[in-house]
Amino acid sequence: MDCQRLERQIAFVREVDKLKTIERQTLLTDASRQENDAEHSWHLALMALVLGEYAGGGNIDLLQVIRMVLVHDLVEIDAGDTYCYDEAGYADKALRETTAADRIFNLLPPDQAADMRALWDEFEASRTPEAKFANALDRLQPLMHNVFTNGLMWKKHGIVGSQVVGRNRKIADGAPDLWTVAREMIEKAMDDGHLAP
Amino acid sequence: MDCQRLERQIAFVREVDKLKTIERQTLLTDASRQENDAEHSWHLALMALVLGEYAGGGNIDLLQVIRMVLVHDLVEIDAGDTYCYDEAGYADKALRETTAADRIFNLLPPDQAADMRALWDEFEASRTPEAKFANALDRLQPLMHNVFTNGLMWKKHGIVGSQVVGRNRKIADGAPDLWTVAREMIEKAMDDGHLAP
Repeated sequence: MDCQRLERQIAFVREVDKLKTIERQTLLTDASRQENDAEHSWHLALMALVLGEYAGGGNIDLLQVIRMVLVHDLVEIDAGDTYCYDEAGYADKALRETTAADRIFNLLPPDQAADMRALWDEFEASRTPEAKFANALDRLQPLMHNVFTNGLMWKKHGIVGSQVVGRNRKIADGAPDLWTVAREMIEKAMDDGHLAP
Repeated sequence: MDCQRLERQIAFVREVDKLKTIERQTLLTDASRQENDAEHSWHLALMALVLGEYAGGGNIDLLQVIRMVLVHDLVEIDAGDTYCYDEAGYADKALRETTAADRIFNLLPPDQAADMRALWDEFEASRTPEAKFANALDRLQPLMHNVFTNGLMWKKHGIVGSQVVGRNRKIADGAPDLWTVAREMIEKAMDDGHLAP
């Protein structure tokens, strides 16, 4: 056993615990509190298991999708969560997150640091069918939570229908059928008065 | 698209959100609060990615390990978390959890309900190399959190070293090298006065 290698791995496993303290602008479905990045990442991984059949582009590598969603938000330990409708926050998001990736993934032994970085880069680039599907889930989950909580966070932040459609349209790239359903959810939310038109 | 199938899948995805409200007897590493089952499940899945090379029994199916850890605690949505040193709670744990499995997995379409149930049964039986490794992670993670928080929860519940060794010895079945490290952690915790001998 290479003790130094294992020490680095354990240091990483310990560090990533902080993801549980990074709060998102999404409520739990019972609206009791905001969820955090670790809970969100788990939810996406489980959704990948359950909804994998809707991935566009034919047969995808489900393990790769799950790998990506498990690590996709780790950079937020340093960079914080950037609300998806926060234009100012998006201006320096890439720089903040790249700096975070350099620190956090490099806690691992070099081979695993490179693997993790490659996963995060693949997710961010959203070009492979696996990354497109992972990104679709990353949009669908908070959308569903907003719908299930009658748009409480949309109302709080003054978000309107065109913004929600604009943000979530990318679901179609990774999971066309899920975009059909998502669009119906958005329309119903507007009809029900939970989302301003 | 089979709308009825997708409706069941979405109902399941919605229901499992409740896992985020099931509190465990483990603190976050910063000791700020207890963690919940969803966070714990995410942490185990990430540990599987990072520590997979220590799985006993040679080449294992990592996707199967991750599948198991993602779903292994879902039954606690109904059955609640049973503290691993709670002997009274363990008396009816199996019955409570089987009843929960019957309800929760069957929210899914029948093929997926059977798949999920098989995953949970495999984890619980802990006979395959994948299940043994998943169970090893499920013990190692809270052990590490106890060590990182100077044994606060051990002290709170009056747990002593022999109980911790007895509970965690099974790590050796799934990941012998990780048990070596875990044993060293336990010994150091006793030397440092964080765990009663």
